[in-house]
Amino acid sequence: MNVDGKHYRTIWPEGPNGVRIIDQARLPHEFAFMDLRTPAEMCAAIRHMNLRGAGLIGCAAAWGLYLAAVQGAELPAAAAALQTTRPTAKNLEWALVRMLKVLAACAPADRVDTARREAQAITDEDAEFCRRMGQHGLALLREIAARKPGQPVNVLTHCNAGWLGFVDYGSALAPVYAAFDAGIPIHVWVDETRPRNQGASLTAWELGHHGVPHTLIPDNAGGHLMQHGLVDIVFVGSDRTTAAGDVANKIGTYLKALAARDNDVPFYAVLPSSSIDWSIEDGVSDIVIEERGSEEVRFMTGWDDAAKRPATVRICPENTPAANYGFDVTPARLVTGILTERGLAPATRAGLRALYADLHP
Amino acid sequence: MNVDGKHYRTIWPEGPNGVRIIDQARLPHEFAFMDLRTPAEMCAAIRHMNLRGAGLIGCAAAWGLYLAAVQGAELPAAAAALQTTRPTAKNLEWALVRMLKVLAACAPADRVDTARREAQAITDEDAEFCRRMGQHGLALLREIAARKPGQPVNVLTHCNAGWLGFVDYGSALAPVYAAFDAGIPIHVWVDETRPRNQGASLTAWELGHHGVPHTLIPDNAGGHLMQHGLVDIVFVGSDRTTAAGDVANKIGTYLKALAARDNDVPFYAVLPSSSIDWSIEDGVSDIVIEERGSEEVRFMTGWDDAAKRPATVRICPENTPAANYGFDVTPARLVTGILTERGLAPATRAGLRALYADLHP
Repeated sequence: MNVDGKHYRTIWPEGPNGVRIIDQARLPHEFAFMDLRTPAEMCAAIRHMNLRGAGLIGCAAAWGLYLAAVQGAELPAAAAALQTTRPTAKNLEWALVRMLKVLAACAPADRVDTARREAQAITDEDAEFCRRMGQHGLALLREIAARKPGQPVNVLTHCNAGWLGFVDYGSALAPVYAAFDAGIPIHVWVDETRPRNQGASLTAWELGHHGVPHTLIPDNAGGHLMQHGLVDIVFVGSDRTTAAGDVANKIGTYLKALAARDNDVPFYAVLPSSSIDWSIEDGVSDIVIEERGSEEVRFMTGWDDAAKRPATVRICPENTPAANYGFDVTPARLVTGILTERGLAPATRAGLRALYADLHP
Repeated sequence: MNVDGKHYRTIWPEGPNGVRIIDQARLPHEFAFMDLRTPAEMCAAIRHMNLRGAGLIGCAAAWGLYLAAVQGAELPAAAAALQTTRPTAKNLEWALVRMLKVLAACAPADRVDTARREAQAITDEDAEFCRRMGQHGLALLREIAARKPGQPVNVLTHCNAGWLGFVDYGSALAPVYAAFDAGIPIHVWVDETRPRNQGASLTAWELGHHGVPHTLIPDNAGGHLMQHGLVDIVFVGSDRTTAAGDVANKIGTYLKALAARDNDVPFYAVLPSSSIDWSIEDGVSDIVIEERGSEEVRFMTGWDDAAKRPATVRICPENTPAANYGFDVTPARLVTGILTERGLAPATRAGLRALYADLHP
């Protein structure tokens, strides 16, 4: 996607031995890059969320193994370290397994080239799959637009499953960009997404730079908007989806799915097949939910307009304890459909299997 | 309730002609008072949320008319100005009507004394009604405690319907304090309550000062906690409840009610009868929802620990538009019961009428 007229992806090889990313921890206030030279640096960047998002984490893990190959490091150990950075993310595991398989088969002398080639292939595939998800979702938005001529289609989204969460286009936002680029009037309600504010800091930023009309709302507001007919469709991403269609996504997604169901608003999870965990069925019992530090809840970082620099404030009493669950699980029964790079599937075991019968017969 | 061992209410007459309040805009970082001398100052304090909360707003309106009487101001004009400060709050209107009725019947020379007496009566009644709500709710908590001996009863609450939102005890938190004081092991999940963070700044503060175990959570977390059996009961307050039991409360309450229903967690609204609007039935269509400034969403104020002073940060891009709805409506069908000063009623027209048959036959 474009930033100030120039096309960017979120991750790319830079120089002979490095990887460059957009440093998302500094957005939306500063648009800056971060260069990574070692797998340990990549682990830290994932853990501290200098980069984040279902698809991008997978690509980052692949590039992390490339850096390990460059450094001549032990690949399985590097993969194990990368795996532990974000426990809920399926793409992380998926990309590491794919990389290790290819690297195990190649001669030691070819390791760096092979790693680079495979990481690039994973990255290119992520962008292409996102583009296709956008096209499939576009069909849904066209239908809504046809029912309300002259009025914008109102999409609600939670967290950031836009191009910053992938390599390009995004998952949940790919249909939005496709519709906007096709001239369909569209408006996005952006959940701020506490505690890390990925909606306020990332989704608002990328929609703004692309020119898509949007309004930032507290996470609390979505139910009220749906009660009053102000949301036509909900698109969210997913960090891990079970074979039965249960969707793990940023904490709070489940609450939006409940509100959508209560108000007959269609609720779609948009995800590449690399996010599907075919080994599990029941998301609530089987998906490990990452718990993060309480300081992310107790403190808020933003921009001090007067001092023109980032600043951090504490928003609770000094000794207040806080809990910070990163994700929740939306049961398949609340999901209208799952949009993947291959198209639309009902959120059921049979529906997902049918779409991937060749891979998971 | 106590602050550092000393008993406080949230509002009281101070000196011959003034009213003193705890300045809630400075909590939790500074415990300070604010003195109000004119009805205009009271309007500003309500509008800027130096005081807030269903019950306290009603008392503040009553004291605002007392200040108008002290100043020799036109009472209906002062009442009209006070009425417009917070459109969703039923208690505001209730208290103003009660004050004007009493004042219309008294001789001009007695106006100040009468206003002071009636405002004090409304204030004392608020505290007493909250105490009673606490006792009625205590019975529910005792039942839960009996089912899980040795384990704490986990309450989830949204916003602040504690003693800071009333004169003393609170509504939703009154049963919590009653249970804690009775030695029942209890733990409160405190929704931070974006965008104004009344949970993080007020509920956490008052529970902490009373010694009640609690954990601050983002508003997004409640559904996940309920899915995993970590919430035994939900208590929320209400700013306006319809005759049919629809409950308007802080934005986001509806989402918690949906999650409670989906997980068979009992969900109670706790409110004095002064919050009931007997003139309306359908809350979603008939309750006016206050819209506040977008800066409350776009900026976050907290405490700068390094500089030891309050600071404000912007959490989104410079030009991001934001919407800020103050309340939402939880339909009666999602409310397990309504606890008032008279006891427990089903959230139905018949249930509420039966409890108040003498007043609304």
